[in-house]
Amino acid sequence: MKDLMVKHVNEGRKPGATVVNYKTPEELQELIDLNLEYSGINVEGLIPLIQNILHYSVNTWNPGFMDKLYAGTNPVGIISEMLITLLNANSHVYHVSPALTIIENTVSKELAKLLGMGGITCPGGSFSNQLAMITARNHMFPEIKTKGYFNFGKRLLVFTSSAGHYSIEKTAMSLGLGTDSVIKVSCDEKGRMRVDELELLIKKSIQQGDIPFFINATAGTTVLGAFDPLQEIGKIAKQYNIWFHVDGSWGGSLVFSKKHKYLLDGTNLANTLVINPHKMLGTPLQCSFLLAQNSQIFAQSNSLDAEYLFHKEKNDIGEGTVGCGRKPDAVKLFIGWKIFGIEGYQKRIEHAFIMSKHLLRRLKNHKRFRMVLEEPENLQVCFWYIPEEIEEFWLNEKYKKYNNLKEIIIKNNNEQLKNYENLNNNQENYFKNYKLFKYKLSKITKEIHLKIRRNGKYLFDYSPITLENIELPLFFRIVINSPTINEKLLDSLLDQIEIVGKSVMESLNDNDNRINQINEYTTDIN
Amino acid sequence: MKDLMVKHVNEGRKPGATVVNYKTPEELQELIDLNLEYSGINVEGLIPLIQNILHYSVNTWNPGFMDKLYAGTNPVGIISEMLITLLNANSHVYHVSPALTIIENTVSKELAKLLGMGGITCPGGSFSNQLAMITARNHMFPEIKTKGYFNFGKRLLVFTSSAGHYSIEKTAMSLGLGTDSVIKVSCDEKGRMRVDELELLIKKSIQQGDIPFFINATAGTTVLGAFDPLQEIGKIAKQYNIWFHVDGSWGGSLVFSKKHKYLLDGTNLANTLVINPHKMLGTPLQCSFLLAQNSQIFAQSNSLDAEYLFHKEKNDIGEGTVGCGRKPDAVKLFIGWKIFGIEGYQKRIEHAFIMSKHLLRRLKNHKRFRMVLEEPENLQVCFWYIPEEIEEFWLNEKYKKYNNLKEIIIKNNNEQLKNYENLNNNQENYFKNYKLFKYKLSKITKEIHLKIRRNGKYLFDYSPITLENIELPLFFRIVINSPTINEKLLDSLLDQIEIVGKSVMESLNDNDNRINQINEYTTDIN
Repeated sequence: MKDLMVKHVNEGRKPGATVVNYKTPEELQELIDLNLEYSGINVEGLIPLIQNILHYSVNTWNPGFMDKLYAGTNPVGIISEMLITLLNANSHVYHVSPALTIIENTVSKELAKLLGMGGITCPGGSFSNQLAMITARNHMFPEIKTKGYFNFGKRLLVFTSSAGHYSIEKTAMSLGLGTDSVIKVSCDEKGRMRVDELELLIKKSIQQGDIPFFINATAGTTVLGAFDPLQEIGKIAKQYNIWFHVDGSWGGSLVFSKKHKYLLDGTNLANTLVINPHKMLGTPLQCSFLLAQNSQIFAQSNSLDAEYLFHKEKNDIGEGTVGCGRKPDAVKLFIGWKIFGIEGYQKRIEHAFIMSKHLLRRLKNHKRFRMVLEEPENLQVCFWYIPEEIEEFWLNEKYKKYNNLKEIIIKNNNEQLKNYENLNNNQENYFKNYKLFKYKLSKITKEIHLKIRRNGKYLFDYSPITLENIELPLFFRIVINSPTINEKLLDSLLDQIEIVGKSVMESLNDNDNRINQINEYTTDIN
Repeated sequence: MKDLMVKHVNEGRKPGATVVNYKTPEELQELIDLNLEYSGINVEGLIPLIQNILHYSVNTWNPGFMDKLYAGTNPVGIISEMLITLLNANSHVYHVSPALTIIENTVSKELAKLLGMGGITCPGGSFSNQLAMITARNHMFPEIKTKGYFNFGKRLLVFTSSAGHYSIEKTAMSLGLGTDSVIKVSCDEKGRMRVDELELLIKKSIQQGDIPFFINATAGTTVLGAFDPLQEIGKIAKQYNIWFHVDGSWGGSLVFSKKHKYLLDGTNLANTLVINPHKMLGTPLQCSFLLAQNSQIFAQSNSLDAEYLFHKEKNDIGEGTVGCGRKPDAVKLFIGWKIFGIEGYQKRIEHAFIMSKHLLRRLKNHKRFRMVLEEPENLQVCFWYIPEEIEEFWLNEKYKKYNNLKEIIIKNNNEQLKNYENLNNNQENYFKNYKLFKYKLSKITKEIHLKIRRNGKYLFDYSPITLENIELPLFFRIVINSPTINEKLLDSLLDQIEIVGKSVMESLNDNDNRINQINEYTTDIN
């Protein structure tokens, strides 16, 4: 196993190696021995099986994996995960996991101390967001814990930005608040929640007789990496007596960076805050902390009397969660922190920022690329490849139309226009042309992405976004996270996009001039 | 690390080794180097730190760990966990975890095939139960997904037995149904849900204008290991159009045993079913499957449109869950199944049953011990140590009173009597005497348990239970699970309980005859 592991890591670190041998689900069905039989195979058979699984998996040790907010882990991460696997322990009650409970308490406290809070771990950022909302509701409306909402009368509302993580909606859905109770505040031109609109929407909801009870501000949005204005949102939350939650699943780890932690200013006002060290710090998946000003609030708000399990001992962490058995994920941050120190995590973060600045510089100096944000504050670099064929459109049309669109949309109560009502002919034309442009560029983005994914040398994602109420064309999102990313890798990534971009355009132009056949009636699929 | 791992496993398997070096939280704070600094320590410092964490942790490889429903894992489990740690992959979307997604689909299908279902993994049994209830509600009442319950009008009710897992209540609480919406059906003398009472309660709730929507039947309860009558409950669920969920977190793995899988008869009627291979099969924690007749129901019922993540590809498992990133836990069952086969898992289960029968025989032949269930169907062995001092009470009083209690309680509408209203003098005396007896025996159980836990050679738990509406005195619960448990270990465990029991009684008798000072006014604390 050791040899297999070393080989896999080395392969991931070899320059030019593929991130993934891309196969369709149908192909993989054939390529991996998936038979599960009555009798087991010999242990010797395990080696080729594991080799095979490794071979057809994404190699996250490869710095070309820039698809998600996490990257590969590191030897210290592996060791810490081996330790908790070896212990095979649950960290729900102290008496079966004494050392691990103490470690979770310590590392939560130390992490929280950086922000002046306390906390516990959850099986991922979504579950941390869920536990935050459950805690908020139970704390603010304890009668709901026993009686539910059935006779509650008023609606409870959740506020998040249009760029907030979808787990907020899944949680509102799960909790029986309904997705309609999630009010989406629009984003400004940098992808941050618009505070003026937030306050307007809160006032409006109170006038309507609803109860705004939970604001989710994002510290590092999933797509653009934007930071909502935490200070201002925190003040509004306080003013209207609303629970202030910060989803720092991605950006919260910046607390380890002297240079960048100013982006978290305002978290001192938060009731709860999520940080996922498994993202920016390279801790093995999953490792997610939910912090609160006072971590006792979890047990106070969420406990039931499960006497057979919790014999009223003070150190049982599980009571504050909605799960039972829990993996001792905190141990992984504890051991990482021990070895790397704040200093080491800081270096990792700074390196990533230096690399993202490099990529940014290259993109800005290249006439085929355009940035989604000119000056991103975080580690995502988002951009379009603009082929010559639509460059003119971009230069002459996009910005002109875009400005027009903004005006039209603002005049129409900030609602995304779905049809062309209330528009004059000129305006209607603007919309139609923009939609067509958006569709063309999105299609180009998707085709380039598919080719590069199949090629397997890089893995990164594409994304949609709505800024100032306008849906932008799909763009590439490169996440700079892995400490082994270097300039050369980023340069050759751009080269590859350009080469693939050219061939995509050729095939689109060839196929009976498909690019010009694309018209507004095909634009629904985005 | 390899050396440390081998040493830890060997220590756990050495006869007579301690399961845990018991220390209080305060002591552990001193004994483990918990300092987290700005600068990291050298990698060499990792070895003593890990040695220390291992030293003060519970050694679940030791067969004396019989405290929870899981035991230590095995080398194959370690290897499978190392594999997924090495890959550090999320199994939410196919394109970043192709092989792992295929494996999850395969192993879910194969596992489900044993029961004629399909499924996905969740981060533990509680989250599986939660996802089952969310799915049921969203499927049956799709309008709640968007509108919540606020204008729903009627109450949605959940039915579970008084011995069902507390995650059902935590879920009802989380989901905004409220814990009052969980109707607890009482258990018969073997700890199984009373089906006659279930039907009565359903009828009553419909008459009251409520909607019964979810029945949780347990296949292997946490404390006694009992199996609710699945066939009969399934029929009732169908008749009243109620979602039928089976919590087989513990007992579901018996599907791998030819001899015992009859206990799962009736699961073919279930809409959803949980199985946790991390319990009875020794797969590393966590590994929990939620199965359904048609696994498409999860995505159908629970998806939102998170386009930035799910690019409408058919193989993305994450859409059906309420989380986002997921650990590929299914890989651990896949590799275990490959190596052990159904045959190997069956052997593991049979061995555990043989050992539990041995313990049972020993207990029945020993006059200081009494069984909670005379013929347990599962791998928990629950019993009391009855010292000579209260033996007479047990023999002469308990059963007589117990029968009287039953009659009185049944006459009083099956309500647990909290005060002595409606009782004649004789009956009131029965109650008072029983409460006193219960308190004394519970205290003895707890004191023996504490001493044995501190000694560290065995780790098992004590539990309360309510059968036929009567709260029994606290008793020992030994879970037979680890494949390295043998007769000698069990024999010496009983010897130890007897020795410790005697010394506990001596100290209780010594201290100004404390055992006789215990009176009914101190019985609240139980």
